[in-house]
Amino acid sequence: MDKQHLRWNGWGLNDSPDVLGENASEIWQWLGKHFRLGTLPDTPALDLSKISVLASRLSETQLSVLAAIMDQDRIKTDDRERAYHARGRSYHDLLYLRSGRLDTAPDAVVYPSSASEVQALVEYAAHNGIALVPYGGGSSVVGGVTPLMLSTQHAVITVDMARMNRVLEINKTDMTAHIEAGIYGPALEEHLQAAGVTLGHYPQSFEYSTLGGWIAARGAGHQSNKYGKAEDWFVGATLATPQGTWHTETFPHSAAGPLLRDLVPGSEGAFGIITDAWVRIQRVPEKKEYRAYFFQDFESGLHAARALLQQGVPTAMIRLSDANETFFYSVLHGGAEVAENGPMGFCLMLVGFEGDAAEVEQASTRAQTILRENNGADMGASLGEMWLKTRFDTPYLRDPMLDRGLAVDTVETAAAWEQLPKLHEQACAALEQAIAANTPPPACNSIVMAHLSHSYRNGASLYFTFVFARDPNNAIGQWKNIKEAVSNAIVASGGTISHHHGVGTDHLPWMQQEKGAIAGALLHAVKHELDPQSTLNPGKMLPPNQCG
Amino acid sequence: MDKQHLRWNGWGLNDSPDVLGENASEIWQWLGKHFRLGTLPDTPALDLSKISVLASRLSETQLSVLAAIMDQDRIKTDDRERAYHARGRSYHDLLYLRSGRLDTAPDAVVYPSSASEVQALVEYAAHNGIALVPYGGGSSVVGGVTPLMLSTQHAVITVDMARMNRVLEINKTDMTAHIEAGIYGPALEEHLQAAGVTLGHYPQSFEYSTLGGWIAARGAGHQSNKYGKAEDWFVGATLATPQGTWHTETFPHSAAGPLLRDLVPGSEGAFGIITDAWVRIQRVPEKKEYRAYFFQDFESGLHAARALLQQGVPTAMIRLSDANETFFYSVLHGGAEVAENGPMGFCLMLVGFEGDAAEVEQASTRAQTILRENNGADMGASLGEMWLKTRFDTPYLRDPMLDRGLAVDTVETAAAWEQLPKLHEQACAALEQAIAANTPPPACNSIVMAHLSHSYRNGASLYFTFVFARDPNNAIGQWKNIKEAVSNAIVASGGTISHHHGVGTDHLPWMQQEKGAIAGALLHAVKHELDPQSTLNPGKMLPPNQCG
Repeated sequence: MDKQHLRWNGWGLNDSPDVLGENASEIWQWLGKHFRLGTLPDTPALDLSKISVLASRLSETQLSVLAAIMDQDRIKTDDRERAYHARGRSYHDLLYLRSGRLDTAPDAVVYPSSASEVQALVEYAAHNGIALVPYGGGSSVVGGVTPLMLSTQHAVITVDMARMNRVLEINKTDMTAHIEAGIYGPALEEHLQAAGVTLGHYPQSFEYSTLGGWIAARGAGHQSNKYGKAEDWFVGATLATPQGTWHTETFPHSAAGPLLRDLVPGSEGAFGIITDAWVRIQRVPEKKEYRAYFFQDFESGLHAARALLQQGVPTAMIRLSDANETFFYSVLHGGAEVAENGPMGFCLMLVGFEGDAAEVEQASTRAQTILRENNGADMGASLGEMWLKTRFDTPYLRDPMLDRGLAVDTVETAAAWEQLPKLHEQACAALEQAIAANTPPPACNSIVMAHLSHSYRNGASLYFTFVFARDPNNAIGQWKNIKEAVSNAIVASGGTISHHHGVGTDHLPWMQQEKGAIAGALLHAVKHELDPQSTLNPGKMLPPNQCG
Repeated sequence: MDKQHLRWNGWGLNDSPDVLGENASEIWQWLGKHFRLGTLPDTPALDLSKISVLASRLSETQLSVLAAIMDQDRIKTDDRERAYHARGRSYHDLLYLRSGRLDTAPDAVVYPSSASEVQALVEYAAHNGIALVPYGGGSSVVGGVTPLMLSTQHAVITVDMARMNRVLEINKTDMTAHIEAGIYGPALEEHLQAAGVTLGHYPQSFEYSTLGGWIAARGAGHQSNKYGKAEDWFVGATLATPQGTWHTETFPHSAAGPLLRDLVPGSEGAFGIITDAWVRIQRVPEKKEYRAYFFQDFESGLHAARALLQQGVPTAMIRLSDANETFFYSVLHGGAEVAENGPMGFCLMLVGFEGDAAEVEQASTRAQTILRENNGADMGASLGEMWLKTRFDTPYLRDPMLDRGLAVDTVETAAAWEQLPKLHEQACAALEQAIAANTPPPACNSIVMAHLSHSYRNGASLYFTFVFARDPNNAIGQWKNIKEAVSNAIVASGGTISHHHGVGTDHLPWMQQEKGAIAGALLHAVKHELDPQSTLNPGKMLPPNQCG
């Protein structure tokens, strides 16, 4: 993954095509009208050549020690590398990057190529007051890769794992694979599928995220119903820690004390740098079938989804959009004509099946019966096929929106089925109110929409997307107020602060509240045991001690 | 569960019927011949009336403080209660109990009836140098409930959770239930099934073990392929710890940091006393089908089992006996006639399906195809039905064996599929050699047998049972040597020291080796955070600091 070709302050390739295609101008016009802005303003990002990046705080001596640990050409201190790694890729991050506020740029970016290089680096940093930020694809949307350091530290280095991208072993007897942590999604699947197997983990960030990041942040792919969330397909890992290399358990199951490998998913680099992992793989599915169903309202769709799960129908994915999201995506695909009709109230469910042909057919037939009994209208396979083709497009919409005075962000959660209808209602209401209260007139309108994204027998996750007009004078304050309002509403309605984005810096206050005092003390005890100097990703996942 | 009716030094009710039925005398005769002992000797257990239990070390003042925490009649110091709770129910434990060596009898047994009583007790004990041993059904076979204390402590109290046996909530929307930890298996299933739901957790100890014990020891039920192992159906818990009450996460899934609730399964009472738990439930299956298949050898059976798992056939259970076990169970059911034929080499697989009628039929048909392709001979449903009826009988065989100079013990493990054939061979060989080397002539014969008991996409567990003639002069030393030999062989072949029995005292050395230094330090860090005085179950799961 050559970072020269990737946007340092946005999503994807420098020359990504416009995903709106021929509908683009109609849609921008509609959005301008919706937000009462008339023609959308022109608000481009600042060019890197116009921005001054602070000098690296690493001394020549320190740089020469790094060069003894790994090849000189894998130690980067140029402006573009440091700017690229100055933040993750949340809306909040982009506000800083696009306006040239690069005060969090790391003092160096290093690209280790082996577990022993990472281990040596970790030990050197721990003994020399340097903070390390483990970095996969950098797609964090919660501040998970912002280079922070404690006031007791004097420099921060981002450890970009992209060179550690080998598939070390594919074991088709055990259906496990042993893979280095820095491999990007497409390369990982290419290697595995060449051997007839798949991890099946396709998060929205798939193209620009890595195996290590998926595990560290407890990510979830679109088809987690079949392939599992990261902590489900995760079998074990090797981590470089200041106390030495930790090889976690890799048994299929055990009763030899608590399963300590479960401390790794969700550790967000704070307990150790994952250098390689064992994962469960499955055969490449012979067949995929994605069907669409319409429901009269969100709650009846939820009821139907729950029936599929609890009756044990093996789905790969159930994605249920609420009425607003169903409408918004119709506009994206259908343009002005659709927009003029306005929301029609019904909700789209996409149900995916993957596996052997017979298995898919059986599951789809059972699902059809259950969904019809639950008042779902079968709309056939075309919408599902379109979704499969275009599913990685949406993140590309953000940069052009930001170029036009708009803002788009997402939050997500999970809760027990019983809580979901109220949670959906309360979170949407909180978003609408907070956007109205924090957006200068006349643009107090918003687009607030949600979908059920991952589901389990005992609950499901909801994913909220919200679009609003950026406050040109206080974009960061506006975002903070909205984020706080919706996060409070989610937690008050019984949801977790994150189902698959993680904690980073942005979710810390709610995460502490959610875990409680005893669990918080346990996290600190584990952190202190593995990383007593807080060398590893200080200020993320755990409350910052004294982040500088 | 009135403990007056249960054997204080064996399995089940005082007046349990002879499970060998009409074949009993033939089988004892055959065993006498097999072990070259002629008529088996008469080696009864010592009667409790002949045993002196040491005086309780609790002072009157301490007993009166306990009586302020809970009702006086739930504080027991009589000999039978203390003898009953002096050890778990392993073969090793029974050697002590049957010979009247009750030096580990607790100073009192208390029966709290609420989480707040348990919390008060834990805090009192922590501040007053008293060790507490959490106790469910007491069926541990690894020393998990032996009342030990540190040299810095002066008394040890067993906390029998049997009074905390209420089903607090059954939530059929979320398919979860909230249940107190001390409920026994039969009562739990009776409550749930009256509401049309089931936990589906049927370990071999089902009749005399509790929800809290299943979670604390990471147990597994026979049908774990469908219902999950304890850590799979476990949703969350409340624990009384010296630092306060810990309410773990109960979300269906989350990315809010590492999942700390996973520290609870396998904690064996050392991190806190589980007072109640949330568990995933399922509808009572409409249909059960258990079919038998024969395989030419163990390895082809393993291959077929793996195919079922990895092709995603939804089984409730796959149980594959090796040739020795297939033979031994044939003798138990068929008597002398079968015994005379000797082992025939083939291996019995029982495959169970549970669920809706259509679901069971589909799964069974798919399984039949796959098993036939893998050289399995379909033997119909009768053997499976017999197994379902008699499956809780085998533990009752141990006491009559011990009464006749014999010994029977079990060990179990799990490993990746690739390791299993070698592991099976090496563990059996180690057992045979160790039994031969540690049993005085002429009785150097043994019965060593195994079955695959629980299976996963990436591996499975093997369960070994071994019968031998007890060394009348050195029964404990004999057991230790055999246990050590087989445990070393399991670990050397890539197995975990336990798949579902736990660690207790007996597996400590291997567990430490298996986890490694970093994980060991993490366990200590967690222990120190939650229980700095080592009040809770000292000497179990974690290496004893200075057990007295």
